[in-house]
Amino acid sequence: MTQALLHRPTAQGVALAARKVSEILPRTPLLPLEVDGRTIWCKAESLQPVGAFKIRGAWHRMTALTEEERARGVVGVSSGNHAQGVAWAARKLGITAAIVMPVDAPEVKLANTRALGAEVVLYDRPGGEDREEVANRLCEQRGATLVHAYGDPWIIEGQGSAGLEIAEQMAEQGLASPDLIVAPGGGGGLTAGLALALPEARIIPVEPEGWDDVCRSLETGEIQRVGPDAPPTPCDALQTPGTWPINFEILKARCPFGLAVTPAEVRAAQRLAFAKLRLVVEPGGAAALAAVLAGKVEPTDRTAVILSGGNTDAQAFAKVLQTRD
Amino acid sequence: MTQALLHRPTAQGVALAARKVSEILPRTPLLPLEVDGRTIWCKAESLQPVGAFKIRGAWHRMTALTEEERARGVVGVSSGNHAQGVAWAARKLGITAAIVMPVDAPEVKLANTRALGAEVVLYDRPGGEDREEVANRLCEQRGATLVHAYGDPWIIEGQGSAGLEIAEQMAEQGLASPDLIVAPGGGGGLTAGLALALPEARIIPVEPEGWDDVCRSLETGEIQRVGPDAPPTPCDALQTPGTWPINFEILKARCPFGLAVTPAEVRAAQRLAFAKLRLVVEPGGAAALAAVLAGKVEPTDRTAVILSGGNTDAQAFAKVLQTRD
Repeated sequence: MTQALLHRPTAQGVALAARKVSEILPRTPLLPLEVDGRTIWCKAESLQPVGAFKIRGAWHRMTALTEEERARGVVGVSSGNHAQGVAWAARKLGITAAIVMPVDAPEVKLANTRALGAEVVLYDRPGGEDREEVANRLCEQRGATLVHAYGDPWIIEGQGSAGLEIAEQMAEQGLASPDLIVAPGGGGGLTAGLALALPEARIIPVEPEGWDDVCRSLETGEIQRVGPDAPPTPCDALQTPGTWPINFEILKARCPFGLAVTPAEVRAAQRLAFAKLRLVVEPGGAAALAAVLAGKVEPTDRTAVILSGGNTDAQAFAKVLQTRD
Repeated sequence: MTQALLHRPTAQGVALAARKVSEILPRTPLLPLEVDGRTIWCKAESLQPVGAFKIRGAWHRMTALTEEERARGVVGVSSGNHAQGVAWAARKLGITAAIVMPVDAPEVKLANTRALGAEVVLYDRPGGEDREEVANRLCEQRGATLVHAYGDPWIIEGQGSAGLEIAEQMAEQGLASPDLIVAPGGGGGLTAGLALALPEARIIPVEPEGWDDVCRSLETGEIQRVGPDAPPTPCDALQTPGTWPINFEILKARCPFGLAVTPAEVRAAQRLAFAKLRLVVEPGGAAALAAVLAGKVEPTDRTAVILSGGNTDAQAFAKVLQTRD
């Protein structure tokens, strides 16, 4: 943790992350989508090799480890997408990875993480077990480095690289940089990174109803947490109990507000992404689009929306397609 | 038709088409997919604005029309994806378009074509009505130009532009041009174009079982047609009665053989594209991948597969996800 505390996330760090990411990952497409006669730009991060933007932060973080740290391995904590990002980067770098995942994670995320060669250590999310404790214990036992899913400067910078790509892709279309970014908000790793990447854009984090700790934190100016009575949500990727100071310092300065979306709004966004963009997007990955479609934020002429991740079980996705809300 | 007969499809024409396409359409991603420990490269043409590569040929063809021809409008013939390509290009160029489509086309394809502003003229495919006749009559009545779905030099060149993009994208990964291309084969517009684009690659067209006229044409060296007793197939996009001489001349010289896939093999490919690539691919769009997964063609180290289109009704796709073959 000491090294992490000394490193501050910066726009320069985001630019470095973008260079590192571009050397190893093909650019994901920025797809136009017409919403009420206006074009919004959808960054299809669901098309990353692990199906989510999380691969960016994991790569930037883990390539910054010393040889000695690499030899001792890493421990990740994740509901599934960060897990796959860490596992993917670990395999590429020849590092041992253990990932602390909830027992109720989607089957596809557990299977993909194991298929990438990582050890999966389950914790009892429904029973309220503290995942950070499980992870810290593992790190102590093994001398491993914790690769946190959002409360880490390199992770923030890495996720921010998606913002620089968006600006570059909009420039190629003859457009100015986005002035509004709507993005899924879990712990605030992606949204904080986008804020660093795009200093002139408003950043709007979108959370699932009942898991709106960032919304409430922005309203009150203090970090709020999700209580133990939070309702079930299909957005497993956004079930984070609370953001961290390193994220919130940035969000507080740059997000005018946060938004919350309902399960029905999320399903509608998944169906639209299916029909109009031909993309498979998981519930948490569709949250930002859901907020736009539900009219909760007014798009500008330069609005970008992050679509990510795309890891959902076939049966669950079929049910979404068959539901009429 | 006179102008079309004078124009021969060439590699230079493909290069021109690629330049024209790159000015108006963002490049679709080339996604790696591991199949039995080997990486194959999937060109996600399902991510084109109309969900299919057909937009390429339509754009190249219609931008080649004279001012006078543009004023008289165009007529297209299509089961749905070429329809949307023509409608999209027509809207962009301010040209009137009528599209002859089968009454049993997927609902999403009819709706999307109309939403793009084209007039849809239905013909009775299940009853055996000849779509070419319907289209020719319309052209005569209106003085409109026929934009054929595959039997047209510009259409062939336009579709071939996907091949140049693949070579460019593989070069960016430090790889040589593909030596094997597996692609959906309907009338042979795409496969003939790819053959012109990539002179050193083997091109393998893949058709649905019972609609394997190109397979049989390659075997016999003469154009064979699909009889009226052809079985039903989920691959509506590949239900073409037969290729044309302009296509077959190229295919004959460059395709060692064609392959046919079963409905179950197609569903398996759709499910794999869903789970591993997070892409929505319609049955016809998954045919080429299906042939590779079924072991009907041995991938090389430089194999590219075309995935396109992505236009499928939600209920039909849900059913594919829920089927266990």
